[in-house]
Amino acid sequence: MKKVGVVLAGCGYLDGAEIYESVFTLLSLDRRGIAYQCLAPDVPQMHVVNHLKGEPTNETRNVLVEAARIARGKIEPLDESWISKLDAVIFPGGFGAAKNYCDFAVKGEDCSIHPLVESFMTKVVEAGKPLGVICISPVVLARALKGKSVHPKLTVGAEGNASNALEAFGSKHVVCPVTEMVVDEQHKIVSTPAFMYSVRVSEVAQGIDKLVVRIAEFIGAETSVSAY
Amino acid sequence: MKKVGVVLAGCGYLDGAEIYESVFTLLSLDRRGIAYQCLAPDVPQMHVVNHLKGEPTNETRNVLVEAARIARGKIEPLDESWISKLDAVIFPGGFGAAKNYCDFAVKGEDCSIHPLVESFMTKVVEAGKPLGVICISPVVLARALKGKSVHPKLTVGAEGNASNALEAFGSKHVVCPVTEMVVDEQHKIVSTPAFMYSVRVSEVAQGIDKLVVRIAEFIGAETSVSAY
Repeated sequence: MKKVGVVLAGCGYLDGAEIYESVFTLLSLDRRGIAYQCLAPDVPQMHVVNHLKGEPTNETRNVLVEAARIARGKIEPLDESWISKLDAVIFPGGFGAAKNYCDFAVKGEDCSIHPLVESFMTKVVEAGKPLGVICISPVVLARALKGKSVHPKLTVGAEGNASNALEAFGSKHVVCPVTEMVVDEQHKIVSTPAFMYSVRVSEVAQGIDKLVVRIAEFIGAETSVSAY
Repeated sequence: MKKVGVVLAGCGYLDGAEIYESVFTLLSLDRRGIAYQCLAPDVPQMHVVNHLKGEPTNETRNVLVEAARIARGKIEPLDESWISKLDAVIFPGGFGAAKNYCDFAVKGEDCSIHPLVESFMTKVVEAGKPLGVICISPVVLARALKGKSVHPKLTVGAEGNASNALEAFGSKHVVCPVTEMVVDEQHKIVSTPAFMYSVRVSEVAQGIDKLVVRIAEFIGAETSVSAY
């Protein structure tokens, strides 16, 4: 049975993992009988946002502990030792990717990236394992690969600050609608914009399902759907 | 355009709304072009559970504020004035339903129920609006209707403490697998067991999709799926 790692940046689009993107990724994998292992870095969140008001609070929360809400407790700390046990890896998005994996949300092109995330992403690509990056996560990947010899083709949807940063980091940006994906065949990297657009959840689900199908093809897993 | 209210008990299966059940409900509605309005009671959570360890913490969180994570901020306080604006209502499950709407998780058959939830559920049924109840939520509904003249047919999956309580409250229990649903045609109440079983997320999605289709039929909305 094939197994895909799904890396979560917390729980909630303003300070953690985007919940729909995370759940749709897991649903698309499970519908095809592909096993998954949720992973998250055991680090503090940059901050906590009250999602009703859209404003930061004075609370402190941990990325791994909050991501465990999406994983129903079945989650492990992000660690490079997982790479050899996984057939592919997918990073859903959410502001947490741009706040907890790196500080792109605050510093833009001048951002730094957590060494663990930089090393994990780089080693997945170097190992030739297929990698899916959703929403803002392609910017994190581009930052991880900055100054390295890999310059993948990626999408964050339309052109703007995120795509400019992605190109400044050395990756190539391709404009893409929410229901589609961009595939870098050489490096086996698939990206889809998801909530980089203000769209309906069923449109996000459609783009993510295509991404998962392409990842499934790369790893030789089932791509058709037997139930639901 | 038809509009369905989706009532959330927080964010996370151990102390709030079950995330998959909530997201799958919204996805199934959106795939059919049915609008939805997320609602949650503006009350404190019974407690906060660390989902990595499965243990309560000393934190305090608010049901409406945490449910806003699932709703991406587009959520309103649960209030009876919504009933006349909605064509139907769905309650996803999660322990939050048995902890924040009532204290069934602690007191079982002797539980009390929050007056706002009791009144809201009762008035939805009295108004003849279709009602969907997922996972443990049928027990909350049965408690709301305890001592009243409505005795609906409901499921919480297999027989056990939850189904015993449901019957003690005056409702009728029907055993049901995760991928199916139980329909009370007379009262337009649909239930599906979801994570009352330890199952795969795609199985839960299947049962919830059938529940949403039946609700769509009751309100004369589209039942076929045009995209994804």
